[in-house]
Amino acid sequence: MALVVQKFGGSSVATPERIQNVARIIAETYLSGHNLVVVLSAMGDTTDDLIELAQKINPNGSKREMDMLLSTGEQISVSLCAMAIEQMGLPVISLTGWQAGVQTNSAYGNARIKRLAGERISKELDKRRIVLLAGFQGINKYGDITTLGRGGSDTTAVAVAASLHAELCQIYTDVDGVYTADPRLVRGARCLEEITYDEMLELATLGAQVLHNRSVEMAKRYSVNLEVLSSFSGKPGTKVKEVVRSMENMQVSGVAVDKNIARLAVIGLKDQPGVAFKIFSCLAKERINVDIILQSIGRDDTKDISFTVAKSNLEKARLLLEANKDAIGFERIEASDRIAKVSIVGAGMVNNPGVAALMFEALYSNQVNIHMISTSEIKVSVLVDITDADRAVQAVHDRFFSTISE
Amino acid sequence: MALVVQKFGGSSVATPERIQNVARIIAETYLSGHNLVVVLSAMGDTTDDLIELAQKINPNGSKREMDMLLSTGEQISVSLCAMAIEQMGLPVISLTGWQAGVQTNSAYGNARIKRLAGERISKELDKRRIVLLAGFQGINKYGDITTLGRGGSDTTAVAVAASLHAELCQIYTDVDGVYTADPRLVRGARCLEEITYDEMLELATLGAQVLHNRSVEMAKRYSVNLEVLSSFSGKPGTKVKEVVRSMENMQVSGVAVDKNIARLAVIGLKDQPGVAFKIFSCLAKERINVDIILQSIGRDDTKDISFTVAKSNLEKARLLLEANKDAIGFERIEASDRIAKVSIVGAGMVNNPGVAALMFEALYSNQVNIHMISTSEIKVSVLVDITDADRAVQAVHDRFFSTISE
Repeated sequence: MALVVQKFGGSSVATPERIQNVARIIAETYLSGHNLVVVLSAMGDTTDDLIELAQKINPNGSKREMDMLLSTGEQISVSLCAMAIEQMGLPVISLTGWQAGVQTNSAYGNARIKRLAGERISKELDKRRIVLLAGFQGINKYGDITTLGRGGSDTTAVAVAASLHAELCQIYTDVDGVYTADPRLVRGARCLEEITYDEMLELATLGAQVLHNRSVEMAKRYSVNLEVLSSFSGKPGTKVKEVVRSMENMQVSGVAVDKNIARLAVIGLKDQPGVAFKIFSCLAKERINVDIILQSIGRDDTKDISFTVAKSNLEKARLLLEANKDAIGFERIEASDRIAKVSIVGAGMVNNPGVAALMFEALYSNQVNIHMISTSEIKVSVLVDITDADRAVQAVHDRFFSTISE
Repeated sequence: MALVVQKFGGSSVATPERIQNVARIIAETYLSGHNLVVVLSAMGDTTDDLIELAQKINPNGSKREMDMLLSTGEQISVSLCAMAIEQMGLPVISLTGWQAGVQTNSAYGNARIKRLAGERISKELDKRRIVLLAGFQGINKYGDITTLGRGGSDTTAVAVAASLHAELCQIYTDVDGVYTADPRLVRGARCLEEITYDEMLELATLGAQVLHNRSVEMAKRYSVNLEVLSSFSGKPGTKVKEVVRSMENMQVSGVAVDKNIARLAVIGLKDQPGVAFKIFSCLAKERINVDIILQSIGRDDTKDISFTVAKSNLEKARLLLEANKDAIGFERIEASDRIAKVSIVGAGMVNNPGVAALMFEALYSNQVNIHMISTSEIKVSVLVDITDADRAVQAVHDRFFSTISE
């Protein structure tokens, strides 16, 4: 009897009616003969509502107490969903993270799963019960409740699937699967049948927001078969795996855009060893993540270094560099938040040297100016003006997908 | 350093502002040098809201899942209150029932505390932390969450106080303490300084609703010093203990009324042994509690038995007796739910034989007709028409308290 893990996000369990809908999907899977562990997120806006309540009392409450508070959201979801399944006459039990033995480190608010301890889940599965597990939460060595941070419930699902060697881990969400581009933004975007872990990782980083990176990384490491699908449409979704069958010669799996970035340029650096180290260690100390880095070829005896950061970090990064102006040694800083990053991702790219050129051609013929370029084995990213972003994504998507879309 | 246990009810923590008010009371006690365990109920209507949500999904959800659901309410209270105390700069930690080791039996929805296991609370107190404990909940031997039923948070507080040998257990509520009668109902009702456990037990049973019976029983068994007081007024409350100092010769501590009862009369029973047994074992099997029982003196060779039950059980009890008419052997049943029970309670009564007579006199001079009478060592109850109830309570209260009220 094969084990299937299913995960339903907050929008899938936002109302009593939706919980009953989820219960029907669960019942169907169970009755088709599978053992079943189901991970649930908190209902709709529950987490935000709890955060707002906490803010009213203390805007700086400790993370330990925030985790104690927020973990109730998933506990409510699993118990309510259990009742919905009970009404269908099927055997079911809900478990919190600590009951299921989801052991984490003690980084409250952003904890990492260390292992799935204890045998509670297995014991319940042996009784042929459907196990509903509260996502997003665990317990540390002190016996305190932790939460896993953004995308936490996806991570819970993959961790359970990995630990119990599930045949399949289905991530139910409010879209039909992973698309070649954001369907709200790009005409002709279509749902992919399959995608590799690596492509999914690049797409998640690039802002596709279907699956959280941590869960995909974990799925890759433990070879968990993932499937992303909709809890509303009933359509088959997108399978995420190590290797996918050759897909109609598809070199590119998806086009992504990220408008939530900003660019900093440090102008007039001395052309000598150590300046890059000084800049980025200074940012790293303050936990500012840097994405694309570009270093100009030196003219005279100076050079420039440009890089992108999250828009929310722009001001902090700028002030930090200004404060270290003497130590680093530069002339001035230029900053811009009117930019966007457009990327193509595809595992087939590595064997098709012309892919990047095709992208640049599509942008050129649509009069999109490129500010920066960054490439990896399975990704090409370009920085463009934010006003060009939508047009750029559509142009690139058309170039790669128009011939094979229906 | 003496240990004090405080408990705050749902209305005391109903809003962020009230939680901050509770935090101030807690801080004051802590800063006066006490070790402190604080038990909290769920915020305001949280529990009712969760029940309503569950009803929409499944009106007959299992009690196990209901406990999983409802226990989140107290977890939310303790974490929010901890944040309020954190903001005052005091050391604090919130604990759930399972974290604190509140072990119960497995009667979901109405579990009994077996013991307080583990050393978590003591360890936290040793660090001079204020411990906020989620009331109303525990954990059974299977590692599942249980709830304690009505008045559960009071019971949690008394159990903790008993187990840790607290000097005092303060029950904060929305009234100033235990009154000689319901102050919303009776003119001249006044707050008692002290009351014995036994009197409190009789008053709780009789519908005074300040403290739940289970918590008072436990307090009596383990000699826990209780105090009932208001979280809003700041006034001294009512102390509940084994023996109280002679109180201005008060024979009666309180007058209570219970309108939530009904009377059944079984008419024309054979006057032979066993009929009472047959009636009440039949009701006991269906868990119907019987209160006052009155048996008429036999006429001819028949007799009548009257008794009271909770109004909600009236119909069930009537049908049950009708169904067993042949086995029991009676002529007919008369039922009425237009009655009320008025009672006086007082530990001094046993040494003052005239007390009951004073009560009857007060009722007589106010033209209140008495249907049934029941007495114990510290209590006299009478059954009257429901339309006479308020007048009866006022008359009896005036008789015993008017001379000593301000």
